[in-house]
Amino acid sequence: MAARARRQGPSFNTREYLYGFHPVMEALIARRRTIHQLMVDRRNLSDRQAQLAHLAEQQQIPLNVVTVQQLRAACGTDQHQGVAAVVSALPTDELASIVGRNDAERKQCLLMLLDSIKDPNNLGAIVRSAHCAGASGLVIPKDRAAGATPAVSKASAGALEHTRLCRVTNLAGSIQWLKKQGIWVAGLAAQASQSVFEADLKGPLALVVGGEEKGIRPLVRQHCDYLISIPLKGRVDSLNASAAAAVVLYEAFRQRGGDGQ
Amino acid sequence: MAARARRQGPSFNTREYLYGFHPVMEALIARRRTIHQLMVDRRNLSDRQAQLAHLAEQQQIPLNVVTVQQLRAACGTDQHQGVAAVVSALPTDELASIVGRNDAERKQCLLMLLDSIKDPNNLGAIVRSAHCAGASGLVIPKDRAAGATPAVSKASAGALEHTRLCRVTNLAGSIQWLKKQGIWVAGLAAQASQSVFEADLKGPLALVVGGEEKGIRPLVRQHCDYLISIPLKGRVDSLNASAAAAVVLYEAFRQRGGDGQ
Repeated sequence: MAARARRQGPSFNTREYLYGFHPVMEALIARRRTIHQLMVDRRNLSDRQAQLAHLAEQQQIPLNVVTVQQLRAACGTDQHQGVAAVVSALPTDELASIVGRNDAERKQCLLMLLDSIKDPNNLGAIVRSAHCAGASGLVIPKDRAAGATPAVSKASAGALEHTRLCRVTNLAGSIQWLKKQGIWVAGLAAQASQSVFEADLKGPLALVVGGEEKGIRPLVRQHCDYLISIPLKGRVDSLNASAAAAVVLYEAFRQRGGDGQ
Repeated sequence: MAARARRQGPSFNTREYLYGFHPVMEALIARRRTIHQLMVDRRNLSDRQAQLAHLAEQQQIPLNVVTVQQLRAACGTDQHQGVAAVVSALPTDELASIVGRNDAERKQCLLMLLDSIKDPNNLGAIVRSAHCAGASGLVIPKDRAAGATPAVSKASAGALEHTRLCRVTNLAGSIQWLKKQGIWVAGLAAQASQSVFEADLKGPLALVVGGEEKGIRPLVRQHCDYLISIPLKGRVDSLNASAAAAVVLYEAFRQRGGDGQ
Protein backbone atom coordinates (compact mmCIF):
# COMPACT_ATOMS: atom_id res chain seq x y z
CA MET A 1 0.00 0.00 0.00
CA ALA A 2 2.84 2.38 0.85
CA ALA A 3 4.49 1.84 -2.54
CA ARG A 4 1.18 2.32 -4.30
CA ALA A 5 0.51 5.52 -2.40
CA ARG A 6 3.93 6.81 -3.42
CA ARG A 7 3.36 5.96 -7.05
CA GLN A 8 -0.02 7.65 -7.04
CA GLY A 9 1.21 10.64 -5.08
CA PRO A 10 2.54 13.01 -7.71
CA SER A 11 -0.24 12.49 -10.25
CA PHE A 12 -2.85 12.76 -7.51
CA ASN A 13 -1.39 16.10 -6.53
CA THR A 14 -2.02 17.57 -9.97
CA ARG A 15 -5.71 16.78 -9.66
CA GLU A 16 -8.16 19.55 -8.95
CA TYR A 17 -11.77 19.61 -7.86
CA LEU A 18 -13.65 21.64 -10.40
CA TYR A 19 -17.05 22.64 -8.99
CA GLY A 20 -20.30 24.23 -10.03
CA PHE A 21 -22.58 23.43 -12.96
CA HIS A 22 -21.06 25.66 -15.65
CA PRO A 23 -17.37 24.84 -15.00
CA VAL A 24 -18.08 21.09 -15.02
CA MET A 25 -20.36 21.32 -18.08
CA GLU A 26 -17.87 23.41 -20.06
CA ALA A 27 -14.98 21.12 -19.06
CA LEU A 28 -16.98 18.16 -20.39
CA ILE A 29 -17.63 20.03 -23.64
CA ALA A 30 -14.18 21.57 -24.10
CA ARG A 31 -12.41 18.24 -23.39
CA ARG A 32 -9.16 19.99 -22.57
CA ARG A 33 -8.76 18.47 -19.13
CA THR A 34 -8.64 14.79 -18.21
CA ILE A 35 -11.78 14.20 -16.17
CA HIS A 36 -11.24 11.36 -13.73
CA GLN A 37 -14.59 11.37 -12.03
CA LEU A 38 -17.88 13.24 -11.84
CA MET A 39 -19.31 13.73 -8.33
CA VAL A 40 -22.95 14.67 -7.76
CA ASP A 41 -24.86 15.37 -4.56
CA ARG A 42 -27.27 12.49 -3.95
CA ARG A 43 -29.87 14.77 -2.38
CA ASN A 44 -29.94 17.08 -5.35
CA LEU A 45 -30.42 15.06 -8.54
CA SER A 46 -31.78 17.59 -11.03
CA ASP A 47 -32.18 17.86 -14.80
CA ARG A 48 -28.94 19.81 -14.95
CA GLN A 49 -27.11 17.00 -13.19
CA ALA A 50 -28.70 14.47 -15.52
CA GLN A 51 -27.27 16.46 -18.45
CA LEU A 52 -23.80 16.26 -16.90
CA ALA A 53 -24.19 12.54 -16.11
CA HIS A 54 -25.22 11.88 -19.72
CA LEU A 55 -22.17 13.68 -21.11
CA ALA A 56 -19.91 11.91 -18.62
CA GLU A 57 -21.32 8.53 -19.61
CA GLN A 58 -20.64 9.23 -23.30
CA GLN A 59 -17.03 9.98 -22.35
CA GLN A 60 -16.81 6.92 -20.04
CA ILE A 61 -16.17 9.07 -17.00
CA PRO A 62 -17.10 7.37 -13.70
CA LEU A 63 -20.03 8.94 -11.85
CA ASN A 64 -19.92 9.01 -8.08
CA VAL A 65 -23.04 9.88 -6.09
CA VAL A 66 -21.83 11.46 -2.86
CA THR A 67 -23.10 13.34 0.18
CA VAL A 68 -23.11 17.11 0.34
CA GLN A 69 -20.51 16.82 3.12
CA GLN A 70 -18.19 14.92 0.80
CA LEU A 71 -18.66 17.53 -1.92
CA ARG A 72 -17.93 20.37 0.47
CA ALA A 73 -14.84 18.62 1.82
CA ALA A 74 -13.52 17.87 -1.68
CA CYS A 75 -14.13 21.37 -3.08
CA GLY A 76 -13.32 23.32 0.06
CA THR A 77 -16.37 25.52 -0.53
CA ASP A 78 -20.17 25.49 -0.45
CA GLN A 79 -20.33 27.00 -3.95
CA HIS A 80 -20.45 23.61 -5.69
CA GLN A 81 -24.16 23.63 -6.68
CA GLY A 82 -24.27 19.90 -6.02
CA VAL A 83 -21.64 18.93 -8.59
CA ALA A 84 -17.87 18.58 -8.89
CA ALA A 85 -15.36 16.84 -11.13
CA VAL A 86 -11.94 15.45 -10.33
CA VAL A 87 -9.83 16.83 -13.16
CA SER A 88 -6.28 17.46 -14.35
CA ALA A 89 -5.00 21.02 -14.32
CA LEU A 90 -6.09 23.21 -17.24
CA PRO A 91 -3.50 22.93 -20.01
CA THR A 92 -1.65 26.12 -20.79
CA ASP A 93 -0.61 27.32 -24.25
CA GLU A 94 2.53 28.78 -25.77
CA LEU A 95 2.27 32.48 -26.55
CA ALA A 96 3.07 31.73 -30.20
CA SER A 97 0.13 29.38 -30.53
CA ILE A 98 -2.30 31.88 -29.00
CA VAL A 99 -1.10 34.64 -31.33
CA GLY A 100 -1.65 32.37 -34.30
CA ARG A 101 0.47 30.20 -36.54
CA ASN A 102 -0.07 32.16 -39.75
CA ASP A 103 -0.39 35.78 -40.89
CA ALA A 104 -4.15 35.68 -41.24
CA GLU A 105 -4.57 34.57 -37.62
CA ARG A 106 -2.03 37.08 -36.35
CA LYS A 107 -3.74 39.98 -38.10
CA GLN A 108 -6.92 39.24 -36.16
CA CYS A 109 -5.42 38.44 -32.80
CA LEU A 110 -6.71 40.18 -29.69
CA LEU A 111 -4.81 39.27 -26.53
CA MET A 112 -5.28 40.33 -22.97
CA LEU A 113 -2.21 40.54 -20.72
CA LEU A 114 -2.94 40.77 -17.01
CA ASP A 115 -0.33 42.28 -14.74
CA SER A 116 -0.81 41.11 -11.14
CA ILE A 117 -4.54 40.43 -10.92
CA LYS A 118 -4.72 38.76 -7.50
CA ASP A 119 -8.43 38.25 -6.85
CA PRO A 120 -9.81 35.01 -8.36
CA ASN A 121 -13.22 36.64 -8.78
CA ASN A 122 -11.70 39.48 -10.80
CA LEU A 123 -9.67 37.04 -12.89
CA GLY A 124 -12.76 34.89 -13.48
CA ALA A 125 -14.83 37.90 -14.57
CA ILE A 126 -12.05 39.03 -16.94
CA VAL A 127 -11.72 35.52 -18.42
CA ARG A 128 -15.48 35.53 -19.01
CA SER A 129 -15.45 38.98 -20.67
CA ALA A 130 -12.45 38.04 -22.82
CA HIS A 131 -14.18 34.85 -23.97
CA CYS A 132 -17.43 36.72 -24.72
CA ALA A 133 -15.62 39.49 -26.62
CA GLY A 134 -13.83 36.91 -28.76
CA ALA A 135 -10.30 37.42 -27.45
CA SER A 136 -7.66 34.98 -28.71
CA GLY A 137 -6.32 34.28 -25.24
CA LEU A 138 -4.88 35.58 -22.00
CA VAL A 139 -1.34 35.98 -20.72
CA ILE A 140 -0.84 35.98 -16.96
CA PRO A 141 2.33 36.02 -14.83
CA LYS A 142 3.33 32.90 -12.93
CA ASP A 143 4.14 34.85 -9.77
CA ARG A 144 2.15 37.23 -7.61
CA ALA A 145 -1.03 36.69 -9.61
CA ALA A 146 -4.11 34.48 -9.39
CA GLY A 147 -3.77 31.29 -11.45
CA ALA A 148 -6.28 29.16 -13.34
CA THR A 149 -7.86 27.61 -10.24
CA PRO A 150 -11.32 26.00 -9.94
CA ALA A 151 -12.49 29.20 -8.17
CA VAL A 152 -11.54 31.15 -11.31
CA SER A 153 -13.42 28.70 -13.53
CA LYS A 154 -16.48 29.15 -11.30
CA ALA A 155 -16.21 32.96 -11.40
CA SER A 156 -15.85 32.77 -15.20
CA ALA A 157 -19.11 30.76 -15.52
CA GLY A 158 -16.99 28.02 -17.13
CA ALA A 159 -15.46 30.32 -19.79
CA LEU A 160 -12.02 29.38 -18.45
CA GLU A 161 -12.50 25.85 -19.84
CA HIS A 162 -12.46 27.29 -23.38
CA THR A 163 -9.84 29.99 -22.79
CA ARG A 164 -6.32 29.78 -24.15
CA LEU A 165 -4.01 30.77 -21.39
CA CYS A 166 -0.28 31.40 -21.33
CA ARG A 167 1.59 31.73 -18.02
CA VAL A 168 4.86 33.62 -18.20
CA THR A 169 7.67 34.45 -15.79
CA ASN A 170 8.42 37.80 -17.41
CA LEU A 171 5.53 39.84 -18.74
CA ALA A 172 7.83 42.60 -20.06
CA GLY A 173 9.68 39.94 -22.07
CA SER A 174 6.40 38.70 -23.54
CA ILE A 175 5.51 42.25 -24.56
CA GLN A 176 8.87 42.63 -26.34
CA TRP A 177 8.28 39.36 -28.16
CA LEU A 178 4.75 40.39 -29.17
CA LYS A 179 6.02 43.70 -30.56
CA LYS A 180 8.58 41.83 -32.69
CA GLN A 181 5.68 39.82 -34.13
CA GLY A 182 4.01 43.04 -35.29
CA ILE A 183 1.39 43.06 -32.55
CA TRP A 184 0.57 46.45 -31.03
CA VAL A 185 0.70 46.52 -27.26
CA ALA A 186 -1.63 49.02 -25.53
CA GLY A 187 -1.47 49.46 -21.76
CA LEU A 188 -4.45 50.69 -19.76
CA ALA A 189 -3.27 53.48 -17.46
CA ALA A 190 -5.36 56.16 -15.73
CA GLN A 191 -2.72 58.81 -16.57
CA ALA A 192 -2.80 58.24 -20.34
CA SER A 193 -4.06 61.26 -22.28
CA GLN A 194 -5.47 59.17 -25.14
CA SER A 195 -8.79 57.53 -24.27
CA VAL A 196 -9.77 54.01 -25.30
CA PHE A 197 -12.45 55.62 -27.47
CA GLU A 198 -9.91 57.74 -29.38
CA ALA A 199 -7.29 55.00 -29.76
CA ASP A 200 -7.22 52.68 -32.78
CA LEU A 201 -7.91 49.22 -31.38
CA LYS A 202 -8.17 47.45 -34.73
CA GLY A 203 -5.57 45.05 -36.08
CA PRO A 204 -3.31 42.71 -34.10
CA LEU A 205 -3.51 43.94 -30.54
CA ALA A 206 -2.50 43.04 -27.00
CA LEU A 207 -4.27 44.92 -24.21
CA VAL A 208 -2.43 45.16 -20.89
CA VAL A 209 -4.52 45.57 -17.74
CA GLY A 210 -2.94 46.10 -14.33
CA GLY A 211 -3.70 44.73 -10.89
CA GLU A 212 -6.39 45.83 -8.46
CA GLU A 213 -4.18 48.07 -6.34
CA LYS A 214 -1.54 49.76 -8.40
CA GLY A 215 -2.35 49.23 -12.07
CA ILE A 216 0.40 48.22 -14.50
CA ARG A 217 3.91 48.05 -12.99
CA PRO A 218 6.37 50.67 -14.33
CA LEU A 219 8.64 48.11 -16.04
CA VAL A 220 5.68 46.57 -17.86
CA ARG A 221 4.24 49.98 -18.71
CA GLN A 222 7.42 51.28 -20.33
CA HIS A 223 7.44 48.40 -22.78
CA CYS A 224 3.94 49.14 -24.08
CA ASP A 225 3.70 50.79 -27.51
CA TYR A 226 1.19 53.29 -26.17
CA LEU A 227 -1.02 53.91 -23.16
CA ILE A 228 -4.75 54.43 -23.15
CA SER A 229 -7.19 55.41 -20.43
CA ILE A 230 -10.85 54.97 -19.67
CA PRO A 231 -12.27 58.47 -19.10
CA LEU A 232 -13.44 58.95 -15.52
CA LYS A 233 -15.88 61.46 -14.16
CA GLY A 234 -16.39 61.87 -10.45
CA ARG A 235 -13.99 61.32 -7.60
CA VAL A 236 -12.86 57.70 -7.91
CA ASP A 237 -9.55 57.33 -9.73
CA SER A 238 -10.12 53.97 -11.40
CA LEU A 239 -12.70 51.36 -12.31
CA ASN A 240 -12.72 47.91 -10.78
CA ALA A 241 -10.13 45.85 -12.75
CA SER A 242 -12.75 43.55 -14.27
CA ALA A 243 -15.01 46.47 -15.24
CA ALA A 244 -12.04 48.21 -16.89
CA ALA A 245 -11.15 45.02 -18.78
CA ALA A 246 -14.75 44.62 -19.98
CA VAL A 247 -14.91 48.23 -21.23
CA VAL A 248 -11.65 48.06 -23.20
CA LEU A 249 -12.37 44.56 -24.57
CA TYR A 250 -15.77 45.62 -25.85
CA GLU A 251 -14.46 48.90 -27.27
CA ALA A 252 -11.96 46.78 -29.23
CA PHE A 253 -14.83 44.47 -30.22
CA ARG A 254 -16.90 47.45 -31.41
CA GLN A 255 -14.05 49.00 -33.42
CA ARG A 256 -13.23 45.66 -35.02
CA GLY A 257 -16.82 45.36 -36.20
CA GLY A 258 -17.48 42.34 -34.00
CA ASP A 259 -15.94 40.14 -36.71
CA GLY A 260 -16.68 36.48 -36.37
CA GLN A 261 -20.25 37.25 -35.27
CA MET B 1 -30.57 50.80 32.42
CA ALA B 2 -33.38 48.91 30.80
CA ALA B 3 -35.25 52.15 30.05
CA ARG B 4 -32.08 53.75 28.69
CA ALA B 5 -31.30 50.75 26.49
CA ARG B 6 -34.81 50.95 25.07
CA ARG B 7 -34.48 54.66 24.33
CA GLN B 8 -31.10 54.25 22.65
CA GLY B 9 -32.11 51.14 20.78
CA PRO B 10 -33.79 52.47 17.66
CA SER B 11 -31.31 55.26 16.88
CA PHE B 12 -28.37 52.98 17.62
CA ASN B 13 -29.78 50.51 15.14
CA THR B 14 -29.64 53.01 12.29
CA ARG B 15 -25.89 53.42 12.78
CA GLU B 16 -23.53 51.57 10.49
CA TYR B 17 -19.82 50.82 10.61
CA LEU B 18 -18.36 52.09 7.38
CA TYR B 19 -14.89 50.59 6.89
CA GLY B 20 -11.86 50.87 4.63
CA PHE B 21 -9.87 53.95 3.64
CA HIS B 22 -11.81 55.03 0.53
CA PRO B 23 -15.35 54.65 1.94
CA VAL B 24 -14.44 56.62 5.08
CA MET B 25 -12.51 59.28 3.13
CA GLU B 26 -15.31 59.76 0.60
CA ALA B 27 -17.94 59.87 3.36
CA LEU B 28 -15.92 62.65 5.04
CA ILE B 29 -15.74 64.55 1.74
CA ALA B 30 -19.31 63.95 0.55
CA ARG B 31 -20.79 64.89 3.97
CA ARG B 32 -24.04 63.11 3.19
CA ARG B 33 -23.96 60.90 6.29
CA THR B 34 -23.78 61.96 9.90
CA ILE B 35 -20.40 60.70 11.11
CA HIS B 36 -20.52 60.01 14.83
CA GLN B 37 -17.00 58.75 15.31
CA LEU B 38 -13.83 57.84 13.45
CA MET B 39 -12.06 54.68 14.62
CA VAL B 40 -8.43 53.93 13.73
CA ASP B 41 -6.23 50.95 14.53
CA ARG B 42 -3.62 52.04 17.05
CA ARG B 43 -1.00 49.70 15.58
CA ASN B 44 -1.38 51.10 12.12
CA LEU B 45 -1.14 54.89 12.22
CA SER B 46 -0.19 55.84 8.66
CA ASP B 47 -0.22 58.96 6.51
CA ARG B 48 -3.57 57.91 5.09
CA GLN B 49 -5.02 57.68 8.57
CA ALA B 50 -3.55 61.08 9.44
CA GLN B 51 -5.41 62.50 6.40
CA LEU B 52 -8.67 61.05 7.71
CA ALA B 53 -7.99 62.27 11.26
CA HIS B 54 -7.32 65.78 9.93
CA LEU B 55 -10.59 65.87 7.99
CA ALA B 56 -12.45 64.46 11.00
CA GLU B 57 -10.97 67.12 13.26
CA GLN B 58 -12.09 69.89 10.89
CA GLN B 59 -15.60 68.48 11.10
CA GLN B 60 -15.39 68.05 14.90
CA ILE B 61 -15.84 64.30 14.65
CA PRO B 62 -14.46 62.37 17.66
CA LEU B 63 -11.45 60.18 16.93
CA ASN B 64 -11.16 56.87 18.75
CA VAL B 65 -7.88 54.94 18.66
CA VAL B 66 -8.82 51.27 19.05
CA THR B 67 -7.35 47.79 18.81
CA VAL B 68 -7.55 45.74 15.65
CA GLN B 69 -9.81 43.34 17.55
CA GLN B 70 -12.25 46.14 18.30
CA LEU B 71 -12.23 47.19 14.64
CA ARG B 72 -12.87 43.66 13.48
CA ALA B 73 -15.68 43.20 15.98
CA ALA B 74 -17.31 46.50 15.00
CA CYS B 75 -17.06 45.97 11.24
CA GLY B 76 -17.63 42.22 11.21
CA THR B 77 -14.80 41.82 8.70
CA ASP B 78 -11.01 41.99 8.36
CA GLN B 79 -11.33 44.25 5.32
CA HIS B 80 -11.21 47.47 7.35
CA GLN B 81 -7.64 48.56 6.43
CA GLY B 82 -7.23 49.89 9.97
CA VAL B 83 -10.07 52.40 9.80
CA ALA B 84 -13.82 52.61 10.35
CA ALA B 85 -16.46 55.27 10.98
CA VAL B 86 -19.69 55.06 12.92
CA VAL B 87 -22.16 56.66 10.53
CA SER B 88 -25.84 57.13 9.79
CA ALA B 89 -27.32 55.23 6.87
CA LEU B 90 -26.68 56.70 3.41
CA PRO B 91 -29.55 59.05 2.56
CA THR B 92 -31.66 58.00 -0.39
CA ASP B 93 -33.12 60.29 -3.02
CA GLU B 94 -36.48 60.67 -4.68
CA LEU B 95 -36.54 59.47 -8.29
CA ALA B 96 -37.69 62.93 -9.38
CA SER B 97 -34.66 64.60 -7.84
CA ILE B 98 -32.24 62.16 -9.50
CA VAL B 99 -33.86 62.69 -12.89
CA GLY B 100 -33.48 66.43 -12.50
CA ARG B 101 -35.66 69.32 -11.51
CA ASN B 102 -35.61 71.13 -14.84
CA ASP B 103 -35.67 70.29 -18.55
CA ALA B 104 -31.93 70.86 -19.06
CA GLU B 105 -31.06 68.33 -16.35
CA ARG B 106 -33.62 65.82 -17.58
CA LYS B 107 -32.30 65.96 -21.14
CA GLN B 108 -28.89 64.85 -19.89
CA CYS B 109 -29.96 62.27 -17.35
CA LEU B 110 -28.45 58.80 -17.43
CA LEU B 111 -29.94 56.44 -14.87
CA MET B 112 -29.16 52.86 -14.06
CA LEU B 113 -31.97 50.64 -12.79
CA LEU B 114 -30.86 47.38 -11.21
CA ASP B 115 -33.29 44.50 -11.08
CA SER B 116 -32.34 42.03 -8.33
CA ILE B 117 -28.57 42.42 -8.03
CA LYS B 118 -27.93 40.34 -4.91
CA ASP B 119 -24.14 40.28 -4.55
CA PRO B 120 -22.74 43.32 -2.66
CA ASN B 121 -19.49 43.07 -4.66
CA ASN B 122 -21.40 43.26 -7.93
CA LEU B 123 -23.51 46.16 -6.66
CA GLY B 124 -20.37 47.96 -5.46
CA ALA B 125 -18.61 47.50 -8.81
CA ILE B 126 -21.70 48.78 -10.65
CA VAL B 127 -21.97 51.82 -8.35
CA ARG B 128 -18.30 52.54 -9.06
CA SER B 129 -18.72 52.22 -12.84
CA ALA B 130 -21.88 54.36 -12.79
CA HIS B 131 -20.08 57.07 -10.81
CA CYS B 132 -17.05 56.98 -13.15
CA ALA B 133 -19.23 57.08 -16.28
CA GLY B 134 -21.07 60.12 -14.95
CA ALA B 135 -24.48 58.51 -14.36
CA SER B 136 -27.07 60.67 -12.60
CA GLY B 137 -27.99 57.96 -10.11
CA LEU B 138 -29.15 54.42 -9.45
CA VAL B 139 -32.54 52.90 -8.77
CA ILE B 140 -32.63 49.64 -6.83
CA PRO B 141 -35.55 47.61 -5.46
CA LYS B 142 -36.15 47.49 -1.71
CA ASP B 143 -36.73 43.73 -1.71
CA ARG B 144 -34.66 40.78 -2.91
CA ALA B 145 -31.68 42.97 -3.79
CA ALA B 146 -28.47 44.10 -2.12
CA GLY B 147 -28.85 47.48 -0.38
CA ALA B 148 -26.42 50.33 0.23
CA THR B 149 -24.42 48.57 2.96
CA PRO B 150 -20.87 49.33 4.13
CA ALA B 151 -19.72 46.27 2.13
CA VAL B 152 -21.11 47.91 -1.02
CA SER B 153 -19.35 51.18 -0.23
CA LYS B 154 -16.09 49.22 0.18
CA ALA B 155 -16.60 47.36 -3.11
CA SER B 156 -17.37 50.70 -4.83
CA ALA B 157 -14.05 52.20 -3.60
CA GLY B 158 -16.15 54.82 -1.83
CA ALA B 159 -18.09 55.87 -4.97
CA LEU B 160 -21.31 54.97 -3.12
CA GLU B 161 -20.78 57.97 -0.83
CA HIS B 162 -21.28 60.29 -3.82
CA THR B 163 -23.97 58.26 -5.58
CA ARG B 164 -27.59 59.31 -5.69
CA LEU B 165 -29.65 56.29 -4.94
CA CYS B 166 -33.38 55.68 -5.02
CA ARG B 167 -34.89 52.55 -3.46
CA VAL B 168 -38.29 51.55 -4.81
CA THR B 169 -40.87 48.90 -4.00
CA ASN B 170 -41.97 48.52 -7.61
CA LEU B 171 -39.37 48.82 -10.35
CA ALA B 172 -41.97 48.41 -13.12
CA GLY B 173 -43.87 51.37 -11.64
CA SER B 174 -40.69 53.46 -11.68
CA ILE B 175 -40.17 52.59 -15.33
CA GLN B 176 -43.70 53.72 -16.18
CA TRP B 177 -43.11 56.98 -14.34
CA LEU B 178 -39.78 57.55 -16.13
CA LYS B 179 -41.41 56.99 -19.52
CA LYS B 180 -44.05 59.60 -18.70
CA GLN B 181 -41.21 62.05 -18.02
CA GLY B 182 -39.87 61.51 -21.54
CA ILE B 183 -36.97 59.31 -20.46
CA TRP B 184 -36.21 56.34 -22.69
CA VAL B 185 -35.93 53.04 -20.87
CA ALA B 186 -33.59 50.43 -22.39
CA GLY B 187 -33.37 46.95 -20.88
CA LEU B 188 -30.27 44.80 -21.24
CA ALA B 189 -31.35 41.33 -22.37
CA ALA B 190 -29.26 38.63 -24.03
CA GLN B 191 -32.11 37.82 -26.44
CA ALA B 192 -32.42 41.35 -27.85
CA SER B 193 -31.57 41.57 -31.54
CA GLN B 194 -30.36 45.18 -31.34
CA SER B 195 -26.88 45.48 -29.86
CA VAL B 196 -25.80 48.21 -27.45
CA PHE B 197 -23.48 49.43 -30.21
CA GLU B 198 -26.34 49.83 -32.71
CA ALA B 199 -28.80 51.38 -30.26
CA ASP B 200 -29.05 55.15 -29.77
CA LEU B 201 -28.01 55.75 -26.17
CA LYS B 202 -28.01 59.55 -26.36
CA GLY B 203 -30.58 61.76 -24.69
CA PRO B 204 -32.47 61.12 -21.44
CA LEU B 205 -31.97 57.43 -20.74
CA ALA B 206 -32.53 54.79 -18.09
CA LEU B 207 -30.57 51.54 -18.50
CA VAL B 208 -32.05 48.45 -16.85
CA VAL B 209 -29.64 45.66 -15.85
CA GLY B 210 -30.89 42.37 -14.42
CA GLY B 211 -29.69 40.15 -11.62
CA GLU B 212 -26.80 37.70 -11.63
CA GLU B 213 -28.86 34.58 -12.27
CA LYS B 214 -31.83 35.33 -14.46
CA GLY B 215 -31.42 38.82 -15.91
CA ILE B 216 -34.35 41.23 -15.97
CA ARG B 217 -37.64 39.79 -14.66
CA PRO B 218 -40.40 39.46 -17.32
CA LEU B 219 -42.69 42.09 -15.73
CA VAL B 220 -39.86 44.62 -15.65
CA ARG B 221 -38.73 43.72 -19.16
CA GLN B 222 -42.15 44.23 -20.74
CA HIS B 223 -42.26 47.81 -19.49
CA CYS B 224 -38.97 48.78 -21.17
CA ASP B 225 -39.21 50.91 -24.32
CA TYR B 226 -36.73 48.64 -26.07
CA LEU B 227 -34.25 45.87 -25.35
CA ILE B 228 -30.57 45.84 -26.19
CA SER B 229 -27.92 43.15 -25.93
CA ILE B 230 -24.17 42.95 -25.56
CA PRO B 231 -22.92 40.77 -28.45
CA LEU B 232 -21.41 37.52 -27.21
CA LYS B 233 -18.99 35.23 -28.95
CA GLY B 234 -18.10 31.88 -27.47
CA ARG B 235 -20.17 29.56 -25.36
CA VAL B 236 -21.08 31.59 -22.28
CA ASP B 237 -24.53 33.14 -22.51
CA SER B 238 -23.93 36.31 -20.51
CA LEU B 239 -21.31 38.57 -19.00
CA ASN B 240 -20.94 39.03 -15.28
CA ALA B 241 -23.58 41.60 -14.21
CA SER B 242 -21.00 44.23 -13.27
CA ALA B 243 -19.03 43.73 -16.51
CA ALA B 244 -22.27 44.08 -18.51
CA ALA B 245 -23.17 47.25 -16.62
CA ALA B 246 -19.70 48.73 -17.27
CA VAL B 247 -19.90 47.98 -21.01
CA VAL B 248 -23.33 49.55 -21.49
CA LEU B 249 -22.55 52.55 -19.25
CA TYR B 250 -19.39 53.32 -21.19
CA GLU B 251 -21.04 52.81 -24.56
CA ALA B 252 -23.60 55.41 -23.45
CA PHE B 253 -20.73 57.61 -22.27
CA ARG B 254 -18.99 57.25 -25.66
CA GLN B 255 -22.13 58.01 -27.68
CA ARG B 256 -22.92 61.02 -25.52
CA GLY B 257 -19.48 62.41 -26.25
CA GLY B 258 -18.34 62.10 -22.65
CA ASP B 259 -20.02 65.45 -21.96
CA GLY B 260 -19.06 67.06 -18.72
CA GLN B 261 -15.45 65.91 -19.14
